[in-house]
Amino acid sequence: MPLPKKLRFPQDEFDRRQTKTKAAMQAAGLDLLIVSDPSNMNWLTGYDGWSFYVHQAVVLPVDDDPLWWGRGQDANGARITAWLPEERLHPYPDHFVQSEACHPMQHLASVLRARGWDRRRIGVEMDNYYFSAAAYRTLLAELPNARIEDAKSLVNWQRAVKSEAELVYMRRAARVVDAMHARIREVMAPGIRKCDLVAEIQDAAIRGTADFGGDYAAIVPLVASGPEASAPHLTWTDEPLRDGEGTFFEIAGCYHRYHCPLSRTIFLGKPDQRFLDAEKAVLEGMAAGLDVARAGTTCEEVAGAFFSVLRRHGFEKDNRTGYPIGISYPPDWGERTMSLRAGDRSVLEPNMTFHFMTGLWMDDWGFEITESFVITDGAPEILANTPRALLVKD
Amino acid sequence: MPLPKKLRFPQDEFDRRQTKTKAAMQAAGLDLLIVSDPSNMNWLTGYDGWSFYVHQAVVLPVDDDPLWWGRGQDANGARITAWLPEERLHPYPDHFVQSEACHPMQHLASVLRARGWDRRRIGVEMDNYYFSAAAYRTLLAELPNARIEDAKSLVNWQRAVKSEAELVYMRRAARVVDAMHARIREVMAPGIRKCDLVAEIQDAAIRGTADFGGDYAAIVPLVASGPEASAPHLTWTDEPLRDGEGTFFEIAGCYHRYHCPLSRTIFLGKPDQRFLDAEKAVLEGMAAGLDVARAGTTCEEVAGAFFSVLRRHGFEKDNRTGYPIGISYPPDWGERTMSLRAGDRSVLEPNMTFHFMTGLWMDDWGFEITESFVITDGAPEILANTPRALLVKD
Repeated sequence: MPLPKKLRFPQDEFDRRQTKTKAAMQAAGLDLLIVSDPSNMNWLTGYDGWSFYVHQAVVLPVDDDPLWWGRGQDANGARITAWLPEERLHPYPDHFVQSEACHPMQHLASVLRARGWDRRRIGVEMDNYYFSAAAYRTLLAELPNARIEDAKSLVNWQRAVKSEAELVYMRRAARVVDAMHARIREVMAPGIRKCDLVAEIQDAAIRGTADFGGDYAAIVPLVASGPEASAPHLTWTDEPLRDGEGTFFEIAGCYHRYHCPLSRTIFLGKPDQRFLDAEKAVLEGMAAGLDVARAGTTCEEVAGAFFSVLRRHGFEKDNRTGYPIGISYPPDWGERTMSLRAGDRSVLEPNMTFHFMTGLWMDDWGFEITESFVITDGAPEILANTPRALLVKD
Repeated sequence: MPLPKKLRFPQDEFDRRQTKTKAAMQAAGLDLLIVSDPSNMNWLTGYDGWSFYVHQAVVLPVDDDPLWWGRGQDANGARITAWLPEERLHPYPDHFVQSEACHPMQHLASVLRARGWDRRRIGVEMDNYYFSAAAYRTLLAELPNARIEDAKSLVNWQRAVKSEAELVYMRRAARVVDAMHARIREVMAPGIRKCDLVAEIQDAAIRGTADFGGDYAAIVPLVASGPEASAPHLTWTDEPLRDGEGTFFEIAGCYHRYHCPLSRTIFLGKPDQRFLDAEKAVLEGMAAGLDVARAGTTCEEVAGAFFSVLRRHGFEKDNRTGYPIGISYPPDWGERTMSLRAGDRSVLEPNMTFHFMTGLWMDDWGFEITESFVITDGAPEILANTPRALLVKD
């Protein structure tokens, strides 16, 4: 009995994605693409599953439908989640997995040879997760007649402008992150262990709403307090929350792998002046950035509007202030194309989606109030609906 | 004011790890190691944080203390979590992050040149997360006088035999996974949404016990039901659990990044004969495997003992049946050195730790009962304490 297909988009959405990607391949002079980035694999075929710890790929020829290639035991996952028919699935035997004697890319090369594709101009994702140096070197050795070129963000760029169906999922992810922040406000108090608070956050994330459940985000909650909030990427401990400390919550709601990141800061007790000053600077700077964030302006214009207000308030932030978001897998919920920073002249288009990452990580404290939004011809659509303020619990 | 250091092991434990790794480097003829695998970075220096979505590394010279190299904003995370002093930290500026114009490895190469290490025999982790093809190619171009060689699992191998302090953490991880399975048994019932059940599992995972909290596991819960359980790596949906279906739960408890994976299967309603037959075969096969799993035997002997019982019961499993475990980060909680499969003649030593992954993924159903254990001179120490049986909820 064939396994039931469970696709999250209608076929014509996948067809449009494929057409768009093939046009970009032609423009880049590529006639085959090896797509290792799990976000790109999902976007092209629907393939979903936590199998990206082994080598796998979607192979997209410019003149044919894609192939799924992966570990034998994951072929059933492809049968269920990807729109591809049986004859487009190429599982490899298990002895290739984490072996000192052979590499899975030897198997992929044999698949390409069997289809007569080993003399093509092949694009590989040189700097994407999870295309390793060994994968690259193995392909070079196995495919001496191919021309192997870097196509690292070719598919990522095709994902930048979202379809209406994708925006529906991102708005659902926004409802999830609203529920997560509501839970934090409800349970946060001095004395409770940080791990117990994070347990509540993850419960809210996955439970989602009464109408739909949540998915796992590509990053776990980043929830540092006090001096540790000077480091943006610490996770949590089992120490109790303390009065007189600020804690930021960098979290995302996720629905069918689509993300809506949203950060807020909560101060337990009477906040010191630094937090009040940061709130003022960040909210004013964010308003300035959102004011220019519309179709036709550039990434650096949005960043510039934010940074100039921040500087006027005496804050120096030496890192980018945002990035595009959408479908993703660990370890990153960003799309890794544009950045909101000086020098990035990418022009914003309607239905591009960004996380405006206006976080401040100072010498011994940190502060985050952020928003995720959709570019339109007018004011951006703010995805979440969580109060945009420093929350003080006294 | 300097940030407070929060180390999870005493300094002499880190010293022993460093000494052990340097001996392996000497044996391999390497005088510098670039360690990109976040598990290896943590094991050598204590460095912890969800920053592995950007390029970062620990650089270990054979004749000196290691360096931490990473994104500027993550230096405070290194100050807090790694034992390294200030002068061993090398942050890179933010414009290197996800840029089309430059690559972070150009910065690392300049650090190596400044220290006079650019003519060394340098080992890189060719097939580890997150050492990309572009990272490798950039190093080759930037360090023409170095000899760059593959050292992909050099550090991973040093991690195989656990210290007593590490075993304490793994036993705590086992308490966490016991609590997770207890929660599943408590709340699992027909009609509840799968996402609500997973929310409970994640709540139990992170809440941990009254004595210590849990950490995030390197893999999210894999919890497929019915025909979807034929695919080992699907995550979850918001569909309700159904009577008459089996569900496997492949989950791990985690404490300070140390894992104890443990899988169980629950059948709602009267189990069909296939599940009862699978339970019998897997439990008998596992007992046979555990019976030979002790210091001095090989990986393939353990696998062989299991597979021969399985075959006698008419089950064919065409993938490996286990791997070493310990400290890890997404996307994998395995150590990626040994495998319990034919052909792997690695000899077991006391305090090696394995997940005996005896799962079966059939054409349209699946079944998992697994154990994690510590090798001793006698019978292995079984880490978890969850009933080893198919659970039927009628």
